[in-house]
Amino acid sequence: MMSRRVSDLCTPAFLVDLDKVKENARGMQERFRSIGAQLRPHMKTHKTAECGDIMTGGSRRCVAVSTVAEAAFFAEHGFDDILYAYPLAPDKVERCAQLSEQLSLFHVLIDNAAALQVLRKRPLLGGKTWQVWLKVDCDNGRAGVLHSGPEALLLAQEIWQSEGVELTGVYAHCGNTYSCSGAEQIKAVAQKTTRLILQFMEKLKASGIDGPKCSIGSTPSCSHPVPDMALLSEVHPGNYVFYDVQQSLIGSCSLDNVAVRVLTRVIGHYPHRNELLVDCGWTALSLDGHGRLPSGYAVIEGHPELRLLSMTQEHGRIEPISGNLDCSKFPLGSTLSLIPYHACATAAMHPVYFVHSKGIVVDTWKPTRGW
Amino acid sequence: MMSRRVSDLCTPAFLVDLDKVKENARGMQERFRSIGAQLRPHMKTHKTAECGDIMTGGSRRCVAVSTVAEAAFFAEHGFDDILYAYPLAPDKVERCAQLSEQLSLFHVLIDNAAALQVLRKRPLLGGKTWQVWLKVDCDNGRAGVLHSGPEALLLAQEIWQSEGVELTGVYAHCGNTYSCSGAEQIKAVAQKTTRLILQFMEKLKASGIDGPKCSIGSTPSCSHPVPDMALLSEVHPGNYVFYDVQQSLIGSCSLDNVAVRVLTRVIGHYPHRNELLVDCGWTALSLDGHGRLPSGYAVIEGHPELRLLSMTQEHGRIEPISGNLDCSKFPLGSTLSLIPYHACATAAMHPVYFVHSKGIVVDTWKPTRGW
Repeated sequence: MMSRRVSDLCTPAFLVDLDKVKENARGMQERFRSIGAQLRPHMKTHKTAECGDIMTGGSRRCVAVSTVAEAAFFAEHGFDDILYAYPLAPDKVERCAQLSEQLSLFHVLIDNAAALQVLRKRPLLGGKTWQVWLKVDCDNGRAGVLHSGPEALLLAQEIWQSEGVELTGVYAHCGNTYSCSGAEQIKAVAQKTTRLILQFMEKLKASGIDGPKCSIGSTPSCSHPVPDMALLSEVHPGNYVFYDVQQSLIGSCSLDNVAVRVLTRVIGHYPHRNELLVDCGWTALSLDGHGRLPSGYAVIEGHPELRLLSMTQEHGRIEPISGNLDCSKFPLGSTLSLIPYHACATAAMHPVYFVHSKGIVVDTWKPTRGW
Repeated sequence: MMSRRVSDLCTPAFLVDLDKVKENARGMQERFRSIGAQLRPHMKTHKTAECGDIMTGGSRRCVAVSTVAEAAFFAEHGFDDILYAYPLAPDKVERCAQLSEQLSLFHVLIDNAAALQVLRKRPLLGGKTWQVWLKVDCDNGRAGVLHSGPEALLLAQEIWQSEGVELTGVYAHCGNTYSCSGAEQIKAVAQKTTRLILQFMEKLKASGIDGPKCSIGSTPSCSHPVPDMALLSEVHPGNYVFYDVQQSLIGSCSLDNVAVRVLTRVIGHYPHRNELLVDCGWTALSLDGHGRLPSGYAVIEGHPELRLLSMTQEHGRIEPISGNLDCSKFPLGSTLSLIPYHACATAAMHPVYFVHSKGIVVDTWKPTRGW
């Protein structure tokens, strides 16, 4: 195993370039060390203990997760100070209570009063207190209570006053950076989100609530932070450890920073259709990125003339963007390397990641999945 | 576990209605028993031993799979007579050789001469012979050598004459039924594919090749078979055991036959955006079906007024198709049931299937994945 080359792998295979992963992780660590905000890396993209270890600089402390399954997985692998950064639903409360009782520090996130009531009905054992983050929507438009309305402050006060529950922080996701193009647009969203959450923290302070942390994050904003982000307690990006074509188009990174590939193999020549078949279907790449790229569902590394036109479960169709395909350049059994549009979606399709350094497979990582 | 109700499950959860699965499996078995063609059910949709057992009427014999990982998984679970129904690539030959040596009957499929050369270089031990199916393209337009060209006959002859290799059959997938609408169109494609493969078998016979089997299949064509399909040796549909919204639109089944659901939970009310959030993102449903349904990425059972507008990794946005949403009808923490557009794609996202009969969880099935 340890001396295998990437080119010897069975396909399709999800490849992780360990050197790029370390470089991406180190870049983010240094960026926020110099800014002075705590980095709480999100585990949702890779869901592996090994990559979490790299993102936390080996501490295995201070991470965010998107599912209870991830929380339990990272807890089993010696991680602690885990924030389950997803609106808490009643069916997840008992497992979260157990994680809170088991770990030194486990945080939940809520954005409505019903969730608070459920927490209050399940006091933690061992003298522990629920560590609660309030999710606010700072113009992202997905989950969270609106920063601008009266409900956000009311809910913060309710948490603040509840017994057995501590208002640990205020959390906003600036997913609206995903519609940006270029560093300047990203910085404008980062600046606005920072300003809105800091204004909300001021409102809290004015109402007598002093002490909760505040955190914003997304890979674009944390790849191009603005100076005011020094006033945040934490940031919580995740995708940056892999990056992907989408992030390169947003302007978070260059295509050269993308650490992951799907290795696929030519399984058929169809000159009468001007098409190659490869063994990468949607089970290996996901259908994310539909209609977003001139090169189809992925960038075909080293072949700007090709497009991944469509996929079925285990087949991908590749055609030239224009002109006629010269099949002799793509022998049956030879491989192509696909740069995923969305690394989170592609990683989610793979039970094993083949981790390499300069083309030599040095490790395999097995992600958790489910909920 | 055994007395849990579906409504007590943590969400998102993939639900399999065991009664409908059995009914779909029995329907297909009876259909081809009466026609007189052998049913070789495809395992790619569910990838579980339990469902394979049901589809084979308990025999665990005579199945098709789409990956070597599936082949190995079903072999481990006591299945035999397994056809790896995917164009064989050189990286898979050694594992296929081992399966051929281990099982009573393991079949591979090829559609080019290079694959045959690789097989010939790896003779099987124990006096065994490679069981090879020739994949032909009967106007489906994906994998396979064109039925109409000279290459198909040449390749058949080359297989027929090779030592250590047996031409077991000729295989065609009528995936072009997926663009049909209604039983008449489906039957027309089924008739045409049947006619084309039988014509090819006649050509083989005329060239002195008599004995190979022939098989066609897809869920639409096998749900509406034509009488001439009695002349086929085998059929190999797979999706029918679950069915899905796509199959109901094609006309393979009614929506009532669909055996699977994603159970999801309301996690947020956003009246200012006229929207609910649910905990079903693309990790729980897949992105298949994009743009195909007025109701978005799925049919929301019992709620024809709603649409699953978009998903991110763990969030789904639901909005009314028209008018204003009455959030009070969808309390926080309550559940909705999504009928998947494409069951194969949705099943592939789940590490566990919750199998129920009349709402009581009676089993959990764990699919294999990977390659």
